[in-house]
Amino acid sequence: MRSAVLAATVDVLTEQGLAGTTVGAVARAAGVHETSVYRRWGTRENLILEALTEQLDAAMPVPDTGYVRDDLATYFGALARLLATAQGEALLRLSVERDDTLPDRRLPYWTERLERGAVMVRRGVERGELAPDTDPGLVIEAVSGALFTRALISGAPLDEHLATRLVDLTLTGALPRTPAGP
Amino acid sequence: MRSAVLAATVDVLTEQGLAGTTVGAVARAAGVHETSVYRRWGTRENLILEALTEQLDAAMPVPDTGYVRDDLATYFGALARLLATAQGEALLRLSVERDDTLPDRRLPYWTERLERGAVMVRRGVERGELAPDTDPGLVIEAVSGALFTRALISGAPLDEHLATRLVDLTLTGALPRTPAGP
Repeated sequence: MRSAVLAATVDVLTEQGLAGTTVGAVARAAGVHETSVYRRWGTRENLILEALTEQLDAAMPVPDTGYVRDDLATYFGALARLLATAQGEALLRLSVERDDTLPDRRLPYWTERLERGAVMVRRGVERGELAPDTDPGLVIEAVSGALFTRALISGAPLDEHLATRLVDLTLTGALPRTPAGP
Repeated sequence: MRSAVLAATVDVLTEQGLAGTTVGAVARAAGVHETSVYRRWGTRENLILEALTEQLDAAMPVPDTGYVRDDLATYFGALARLLATAQGEALLRLSVERDDTLPDRRLPYWTERLERGAVMVRRGVERGELAPDTDPGLVIEAVSGALFTRALISGAPLDEHLATRLVDLTLTGALPRTPAGP
């Protein structure tokens, strides 16, 4: 039942948008009782967050090419593409909505996503591609923050080229000054 | 009348939050007729955006110390402080809200704010502090995007130290590789 409901949630979101994604609509699409959905997920927000998280994490595997620049360009290129889709937009909107159920989940949710990305930077530090005092989370925040801001606030266009330029700007700063760092 | 209404808007926002900032509440606080406010600003959103823009631009003068790093650290330190206030929070929330009146104003609004910040980077390029091919807007987006994202999405803490660390990460990337760049 879990995967059927989560898949139905993504379908309804894609077709109806965030406002149309009610527990009732999802239950009908999945062929289950509304009460079963509430019993398992508690709130509409929890349901949507879990459905989108699964989908987006699956669409954004963390690459491991052996080169930090390639890993980050691939990863954030995928993020830029996703943020331009109805699901990406819904995930962002849901993340900025505040209600009684969400404040508890936003920070852990985004901390976990940030940590997924930071693994790529950490590997680059271990390989000596980046300065030893690089803050992995800060690199991820600088690149992803600019992408999120375009999607949510400014409405400026999002594309993979932008992601690559942000990675290059941020990474060049993170590169060791001398070829063989301390 | 204009400045009285804008000042009243900021007062009501600070006391009542975004949801409580209706045209009626602002008109009462300013001692003017509600219809006068609608005649001049058209919508509640336009009124709030104009009031916050004036206040935030006044609170965030663009520094010109002669050093790009100091300019940016001061400017974004002020942004980090502002985003932690009720007005900064309201401006961000209003910027992500979508209704029939806002899409027209969001992009020009944020483009203008971005351009204000880019001036500091451009001066750094002219002084030879930064590489000649530096993209001024991209530097501003990388730093501000991470701050906006903490305020809006992750809920992680915002402070001036974070702003300085982001400036340093991004700038070091923008610095010329050789002391005398091409």
